[in-house]
Amino acid sequence: MSEQPEIVIVGAGFGGLFAAQALRNKPVDVVLIDRNNFHTFTPLLYQVATCALDPSEITKPVRSIFRKSRNIKFLLGEVTDVSLSENRITVQAAGSSHPIEYDYLILSGGSESNYFGNQQIEAFSFDLKSLGDAVDLRNHALRQFERAVWTEDPEEQESLLTFVVVGGGPTGIETAGALYELYNHVLDREFSGGELKARVVLVEMLDHLLRGYPSGLRQSARKQLEGLGVEVRLGTPVAEVEAGKVTLGDGTVIPTHTLVWSAGVRGTKLANLLGVDLTRANLVPVQPTLQLADFPNAYCVGDMCYLEDEHGDPYPQTIPPAQQQARLAAANIMAELNGQPLDTFRFHDRGSMATIGRSRAVAWIYKRIGMSGFLAWIAWLFLHLISLVGFRNRLNVFVNWIWNYLTYDRSVRLILEKSENKQQTE
Amino acid sequence: MSEQPEIVIVGAGFGGLFAAQALRNKPVDVVLIDRNNFHTFTPLLYQVATCALDPSEITKPVRSIFRKSRNIKFLLGEVTDVSLSENRITVQAAGSSHPIEYDYLILSGGSESNYFGNQQIEAFSFDLKSLGDAVDLRNHALRQFERAVWTEDPEEQESLLTFVVVGGGPTGIETAGALYELYNHVLDREFSGGELKARVVLVEMLDHLLRGYPSGLRQSARKQLEGLGVEVRLGTPVAEVEAGKVTLGDGTVIPTHTLVWSAGVRGTKLANLLGVDLTRANLVPVQPTLQLADFPNAYCVGDMCYLEDEHGDPYPQTIPPAQQQARLAAANIMAELNGQPLDTFRFHDRGSMATIGRSRAVAWIYKRIGMSGFLAWIAWLFLHLISLVGFRNRLNVFVNWIWNYLTYDRSVRLILEKSENKQQTE
Repeated sequence: MSEQPEIVIVGAGFGGLFAAQALRNKPVDVVLIDRNNFHTFTPLLYQVATCALDPSEITKPVRSIFRKSRNIKFLLGEVTDVSLSENRITVQAAGSSHPIEYDYLILSGGSESNYFGNQQIEAFSFDLKSLGDAVDLRNHALRQFERAVWTEDPEEQESLLTFVVVGGGPTGIETAGALYELYNHVLDREFSGGELKARVVLVEMLDHLLRGYPSGLRQSARKQLEGLGVEVRLGTPVAEVEAGKVTLGDGTVIPTHTLVWSAGVRGTKLANLLGVDLTRANLVPVQPTLQLADFPNAYCVGDMCYLEDEHGDPYPQTIPPAQQQARLAAANIMAELNGQPLDTFRFHDRGSMATIGRSRAVAWIYKRIGMSGFLAWIAWLFLHLISLVGFRNRLNVFVNWIWNYLTYDRSVRLILEKSENKQQTE
Repeated sequence: MSEQPEIVIVGAGFGGLFAAQALRNKPVDVVLIDRNNFHTFTPLLYQVATCALDPSEITKPVRSIFRKSRNIKFLLGEVTDVSLSENRITVQAAGSSHPIEYDYLILSGGSESNYFGNQQIEAFSFDLKSLGDAVDLRNHALRQFERAVWTEDPEEQESLLTFVVVGGGPTGIETAGALYELYNHVLDREFSGGELKARVVLVEMLDHLLRGYPSGLRQSARKQLEGLGVEVRLGTPVAEVEAGKVTLGDGTVIPTHTLVWSAGVRGTKLANLLGVDLTRANLVPVQPTLQLADFPNAYCVGDMCYLEDEHGDPYPQTIPPAQQQARLAAANIMAELNGQPLDTFRFHDRGSMATIGRSRAVAWIYKRIGMSGFLAWIAWLFLHLISLVGFRNRLNVFVNWIWNYLTYDRSVRLILEKSENKQQTE
């Protein structure tokens, strides 16, 4: 066996993936660990949830990404313990616990939905954080339409076809827009000849959408959503959730069987394993070099780390900071191995964008140029297509998007029931 | 409401689908009922199970197939009762029971795996009868490789990577071939640089493969399978199955965690609801007109019906008889409504084919011309491509096949874990 330094990366999301790619063919041995055998292109999860794309089109097996990288080894498993002082993690896999020692550690565990302690919301709502979430929402949403066909009670029918999306960020906006289009432009033709209409309500606690965007683009996003048919409720939180209805802070009661939650994230349970002080949102504070304060051989990047910019604001929990932090963590480890000084993190912000259904979007490029409408949508399309990992995915996604656009169809409309668990010979 | 005769079709497999298509735009009202909201192109289930195709590529939403057919209504639900004497079925859907009356009934419930009463086999084996089965097998098979990476025990590793397929018909042959190729031509490069090798054993009780094929093609199929690397065990049944091993009738013990069962089918539970005498394999005997003996307004077609040809042999439980029977049942109902005489079933057999991995196949065309090897494979490819329902599916399948063929890759390698069930607001 080689005597190269061993670098363990936890998580094959954007942070872990980019860190591993930055260490490809370097004189180190990399072990990349994830609970799933695939990397997920999370910005398009809402398209899986709304029947536009297949799960395999927004994912890529991790092993196939690193097929030709001899110094990168993938392991499927769940990290159940981290001992920073002993340079060791423990992985639960194949029915038992496996300790793995490291010289350097890169933690990139991502985030999970933050319900701010409200167990009611947690129990009743759908998330869009993982591929499984997206498939669950797809199954559920399609089932609501099929259920509505069987009832003659107009009130029950209305509540089955009402979808409440909470959170005015890009995920909330994109999901609300795509849900509205799925029902009112695709499915309605197939259900009772257009008699059934769906209602999509987007709820945001702040008095505007898209925090971090300039006021003109926020208003444009709202106008585009409302122009599509989505009801936008600003300045009110969700107060209560129970079977069959959602009550807003202003007292409005919305009869519904579907609540999609995209109103905030927190660090995952991985953060709790570290034994270090975390922020209120369960994030891991890091030095500007991305090292943990007391453990300089442990780095943390992406959604799960907490670092403030020069104005004292935390970096956004989006993909670009995760990618850039991952590259810096890898570079800093290589610098230390080569006896060079470490660098500190500076975020190169190329801006952000959100799509709002067919032909509508807003984009805030380099935080200088605002774009909205069709042009922003074309920019969104182009950017996401080139960012998708793997040539085959890109080609298939392109074929599907063209098809969906031209035909107003959504092909991936499967209600995949869970099969009973087989006993298995294991 | 119209006063047209009401025809209820149970099952949207090949039988039900073709019956409904034959009744499209006829002066009748059709209600088509299925437990799933999609039709499945079952001959390619094994390609979903072996990571070559996506679930949505071999399925099509039933509602989208009949989007433009105003006289055909789809309902998602499970038939829980059939009263042939009262012309009424009962459907469980959306949480309650719904009675539906009919003037004519077409039963097309298909078949399920026949374990011949062996509960051990039923508990431990994987089927390939539904889309859910295929996804389960895909998840399980990929997981075996990931588990093998974690163990250092060579015996355990070997048993994890041994796959036993039971049944020498087309499904068994195709699955065994595709499994072997997935592991030994795709995955092995990504696992420890090719150190892990998988073993695929095909077990058949008879002393030959492919019942119904001439002897030359049977031997060719066996040679092609063995040339690929699959072990073929003829003339021996599976005697016993328990956790971690399969014992054959000849005493051979195969350590394995995967048993795929494609050794026979029986009529589904729908047949038991009818209150008529069934065959030993749970099939519904029908008249040559496809009517039930005592209930001339009830027809039964496809895998679940029992009818003998002029030699006293039952028709094969494959797609072509199901399609042709479905068309005859629809035609006979229209004939009766128009006061014309009913026709009896005659099967136009265009032959059959089975593929054996990359570039290998056998074909028995019109039961006269035998073909094997590359030419048969091209014929198989062409036939399946043109049979796939829906233009988009065809294009995507074509792209994927070309991609898989050129790159030796299989893109759909997702282990999709079942997520915990959300409580839901319903």
